[in-house]
Amino acid sequence: LSPYYTLALDAMGGDLGPSTSLEAALASLESHPRLTLYWVGPQAILAPLMAAVTEKQAPLLQRLHFIDAPQVVEKTDDLMVILRQKQNSSMYIALALVAQGKANACISGGSSAALMALSRHLIKMLPGYERPAFASHIPTSKGMCLLLDIGANLSSTGHQLYQFGQLGQALEASLQQNPNVSVKLLNIATESGTGQAQVQAADTLLEADPKLNYLGYIEPQEVFDGQAKVVVCDGYAGNILIKSGEGVSNMLARSFMANLTSSDLTPPQIEKIMQAWQFQFDPDRLNGAFLLGLQGLVVKSHSYANATALRYAIEATQKYVEMQVARRLQDGH
Amino acid sequence: LSPYYTLALDAMGGDLGPSTSLEAALASLESHPRLTLYWVGPQAILAPLMAAVTEKQAPLLQRLHFIDAPQVVEKTDDLMVILRQKQNSSMYIALALVAQGKANACISGGSSAALMALSRHLIKMLPGYERPAFASHIPTSKGMCLLLDIGANLSSTGHQLYQFGQLGQALEASLQQNPNVSVKLLNIATESGTGQAQVQAADTLLEADPKLNYLGYIEPQEVFDGQAKVVVCDGYAGNILIKSGEGVSNMLARSFMANLTSSDLTPPQIEKIMQAWQFQFDPDRLNGAFLLGLQGLVVKSHSYANATALRYAIEATQKYVEMQVARRLQDGH
Repeated sequence: LSPYYTLALDAMGGDLGPSTSLEAALASLESHPRLTLYWVGPQAILAPLMAAVTEKQAPLLQRLHFIDAPQVVEKTDDLMVILRQKQNSSMYIALALVAQGKANACISGGSSAALMALSRHLIKMLPGYERPAFASHIPTSKGMCLLLDIGANLSSTGHQLYQFGQLGQALEASLQQNPNVSVKLLNIATESGTGQAQVQAADTLLEADPKLNYLGYIEPQEVFDGQAKVVVCDGYAGNILIKSGEGVSNMLARSFMANLTSSDLTPPQIEKIMQAWQFQFDPDRLNGAFLLGLQGLVVKSHSYANATALRYAIEATQKYVEMQVARRLQDGH
Repeated sequence: LSPYYTLALDAMGGDLGPSTSLEAALASLESHPRLTLYWVGPQAILAPLMAAVTEKQAPLLQRLHFIDAPQVVEKTDDLMVILRQKQNSSMYIALALVAQGKANACISGGSSAALMALSRHLIKMLPGYERPAFASHIPTSKGMCLLLDIGANLSSTGHQLYQFGQLGQALEASLQQNPNVSVKLLNIATESGTGQAQVQAADTLLEADPKLNYLGYIEPQEVFDGQAKVVVCDGYAGNILIKSGEGVSNMLARSFMANLTSSDLTPPQIEKIMQAWQFQFDPDRLNGAFLLGLQGLVVKSHSYANATALRYAIEATQKYVEMQVARRLQDGH
């Protein structure tokens, strides 16, 4: 039997509100009998939702521990205000549960900037690491690829990019149980001597580290060909890459659907084709970005995540805990 | 009847060599009886190719004027070397034909950096404009969108980004014969006060210009929803966006094709669906990036363009000449 896990879930982060959070929480608890969740948010809002749970789902509430957090972090809040005056917010308290060792990991759909600032404040960085990075798996023609940073930082130095390479390789090596996963560095051209100064500096540092299976530059289109298991980039580039991918995927899915509908295919034929396709590229399944570089596990859910997407983020987090990723990252560095 | 056009074609720029260039040139000349091409490159290489043209295509050579350029610009050449010592290169001479008013526009598949440096040197910038930008049309759910800069500059100031907005609106207004085309600015979040300092500075400048139909920030995924006709970004972001789009499109096309093949559809049914799809997103049709901001027309073809893709770039260039884009850009500013 797998051990018991406890995750802290910020009930207030997502755009769709705490009822979506509750739906995802109950679905996760139902499929994972050894999971326990701390559900963190204002009592006035959460208590009525819990009271309204159906009789069938009520037994699941034994593993959903409500934690009162009367404040909410707003997207418009200044970071200094959050750090100093929002110590009773759902995000703050959910992260504090990880810092205190009461939860194995925290999941929030709240502001990325706030989550990063509070995580650094409460959970601390791994020794020697300068900045955290958001890491996410994206689909490629040859399976998933870990991309980082996808937006924790607007820009990064060469040394910080190098550290992202170390962190990314450590995470992916843990998940795949293969110490030799390949690492590449995103650039807009692959000839040596091209690209921004910090990217060239990172290339030199990555190349010089004998512990990394570093294979040089990769262009954005090659990422989707699956030419590396870990791709390092600055948060600006990574954010653009991932959102462009999403946009093109949605555009093409709509267009393909229209072409199928206007063909002479029957509805069941069309549905079967689209299902095979959606299973592979369903954005809900890709929800959950790992905030890497900390002494604990923090996962960011899309702010616009629906209950299905949030459930995938919770289950991805549980998998990280199960794989003892936090300990491996600590030991590795 | 449309007037006569003369374009200068750098025979040596593309990876596939001058035989591909000749194939594209002849195909363009065949479909456009009022087009004349200067075909620029080393006599020793080009003359045998011209001599080997089939009897059927030989009459087209009357409108393909060979211009000898014994040197070739190599990808590895230093820019100072190109400017000072490659004045007999195919790229240099093709651009000089535009500068001298002998050709209406130049098309090259050679190095972007070299093309930009030589263009600025020979053709000069439009008065008041600091930097050229590569502009390209990309497909969206609501028709084509002009994206610039897609890689002429690794980074840009707020003022340069603002000028890209002016140039992009002027070009697209000419092409669409609609002065009110919408302009947006790429950012990784759309809340005001977010993003890199130069992007925020550009937002302020674009907002303050009453001549522009500027509608604020746009995120990468929204570009593909067709939320703007012109999207301004720095060359790093634009290059990543466009190459990510290409990568995802290729990945999904392969995956969709595999799903269709493993379905119970007949080969003709599959072909029909894929054709409808390819027509819309065929990357060959999108070849040809406009180097905007100069006192003349310069178009960059993909270095890896095949003959079909190069023909599309030549024909796009002819369309720009036909629409008198150069004059409109000069008059507009």
